[in-house]
Amino acid sequence: MGDSGFKNCQVLITGGLGFIGSNLAHRLVLLGAQVTIVDNLFPTQGGCQANIRGIEDKVRVNISDIRNQQSLEHLVRGVEFIFNLAGQTSHLDSMRDPMTDLDLNCAAQLALLEVCRRHNPDCKIVYASTRQIYGRPAYLPVDEKHLLHPVDVNGVNKMAGEAYHLVYHEVYGLRATALRLTNTFGPRMRVKDARQTFLGIWMRLALQGLPFEVWGGAQLRDFTFVDDAVDAFLLAAATPEADGQVFNIAGEPVVSLTELAEMLAGATGQNYVVREFPPERLRIDIGDYHADDSAFRALTGWAPKVPLAEGLERTLAYYRDNLGDYL
Amino acid sequence: MGDSGFKNCQVLITGGLGFIGSNLAHRLVLLGAQVTIVDNLFPTQGGCQANIRGIEDKVRVNISDIRNQQSLEHLVRGVEFIFNLAGQTSHLDSMRDPMTDLDLNCAAQLALLEVCRRHNPDCKIVYASTRQIYGRPAYLPVDEKHLLHPVDVNGVNKMAGEAYHLVYHEVYGLRATALRLTNTFGPRMRVKDARQTFLGIWMRLALQGLPFEVWGGAQLRDFTFVDDAVDAFLLAAATPEADGQVFNIAGEPVVSLTELAEMLAGATGQNYVVREFPPERLRIDIGDYHADDSAFRALTGWAPKVPLAEGLERTLAYYRDNLGDYL
Repeated sequence: MGDSGFKNCQVLITGGLGFIGSNLAHRLVLLGAQVTIVDNLFPTQGGCQANIRGIEDKVRVNISDIRNQQSLEHLVRGVEFIFNLAGQTSHLDSMRDPMTDLDLNCAAQLALLEVCRRHNPDCKIVYASTRQIYGRPAYLPVDEKHLLHPVDVNGVNKMAGEAYHLVYHEVYGLRATALRLTNTFGPRMRVKDARQTFLGIWMRLALQGLPFEVWGGAQLRDFTFVDDAVDAFLLAAATPEADGQVFNIAGEPVVSLTELAEMLAGATGQNYVVREFPPERLRIDIGDYHADDSAFRALTGWAPKVPLAEGLERTLAYYRDNLGDYL
Repeated sequence: MGDSGFKNCQVLITGGLGFIGSNLAHRLVLLGAQVTIVDNLFPTQGGCQANIRGIEDKVRVNISDIRNQQSLEHLVRGVEFIFNLAGQTSHLDSMRDPMTDLDLNCAAQLALLEVCRRHNPDCKIVYASTRQIYGRPAYLPVDEKHLLHPVDVNGVNKMAGEAYHLVYHEVYGLRATALRLTNTFGPRMRVKDARQTFLGIWMRLALQGLPFEVWGGAQLRDFTFVDDAVDAFLLAAATPEADGQVFNIAGEPVVSLTELAEMLAGATGQNYVVREFPPERLRIDIGDYHADDSAFRALTGWAPKVPLAEGLERTLAYYRDNLGDYL
């Protein structure tokens, strides 16, 4: 099925007021899907009412927590696709308060999967996993055969969250696919702080006329513009052969943080400072990372379309107009 | 340090009324250690007061749940070694009630590690992990470089429990080692049902004069007699180079379930029946498994000492005398 396959489809997006979830909602509304968003608006996560500006009347927003199986049952029944983006993303928060991270990334995922197998076993679920679960790469680019060595509690719990999806596929036949996302950026990302990605806070500071801080600088990374990530979610949903599988989603080109900082400085006219890693970040930093996503490309034909520089420009343009909603 | 290094040491054993935990307690009492046992006596687990018969007056038993951080603080302070065997082991229970498994295998482990880093950051922790987290082997023998693909919720949560230990080593310097145990058997194992290992229920039925059931039969497995597993725990504890590492513990020889059934039939004079796998077990069965434990042998000099036939005999002898306590 192509994009047209989502027309009139019942779709549920967990974490749908968040960064990637809300971008998915915008796209799915365009494609004619019937979108329900569930989000707990947890203050340290990405959920934000401004993220659905323009589609407020075209989506159903349900403010609740997917740990609550009772409310979830009603939301899951009759849905054809679940884009499962609810979760906690902050590495530092997970070390400060590991139990809350466990709750949001493990208990909530188990609750959702239990409700699906009992009340909607035929729906397709695409789970937002993360490169973070690989930990420090043993080789580059990292493919899906790389061992998982998460370096923080958030990584452990995201690893478990992904693994539950595969178990529920194997044992109950749930149609689950997991995408291990690399650094994703774009309009509607959290820029208040570094909880989603350091690039958010870089952009916010640059737009506020303040120097942003580069920690280290030599680390290699790849970046996915959010529209390309949305394409990947839709393709994963529409590809039955992806059921029960896990795929890397990477970005191109691979750049060092200093190169990225140069691009952002060039685009904003704002300077940056390079700093030593703060010790509590250094212990959970993973060094260089970039991924091999050839398996997903080969299966689905996906390829990123938005060059890094263009993605940065489009993101900056969004926040020039909307920064006040994200502070 | 040799075994003598445990003399007068303060040792905490979580799950210490259970199968391996109580065998460790017996050995450590012999070695002159000051042993505290913490166990919640959760009815579906291995905890059993009969397991410490003979050492009741030489150990301190604290009935509590390691999820309770308050009580745990008092137990963890001043301890030199923690043998961390608390957990839920049943694969089927984890599918029936995934939240309880999450609680016992993840939340409880995080609680223990948090208490250790705050109140006793220098203690050594040896965590009982499991071969189950590898899932269906991609190659044999399975070494520690094999990908983790747990096939049930219990496997996912045990994988997370192990990973927390490594994260707390990396981030906080906690001296944690994980042993991925294969099928362990011996006196004091649960024989009431198959929650710990099928071999428990086989032995119980054979001793009761009832035919035991072999599901499948061709699957290859390796088995560790519990005294050898106890040796491994003590060596892991006494070897600083093992800190932050994960090791397989295997057994020899590798046998098929039918071969094992033959040995047990020979030792007890009791017959067995071969059956098809029940469907709910087949979905989470892992096929053939045996492990490569050369890394642990090379580092510590460990090797199993008790041949399989002798281990079976010693276990049968124990249950001939004590079966009533385990029904």
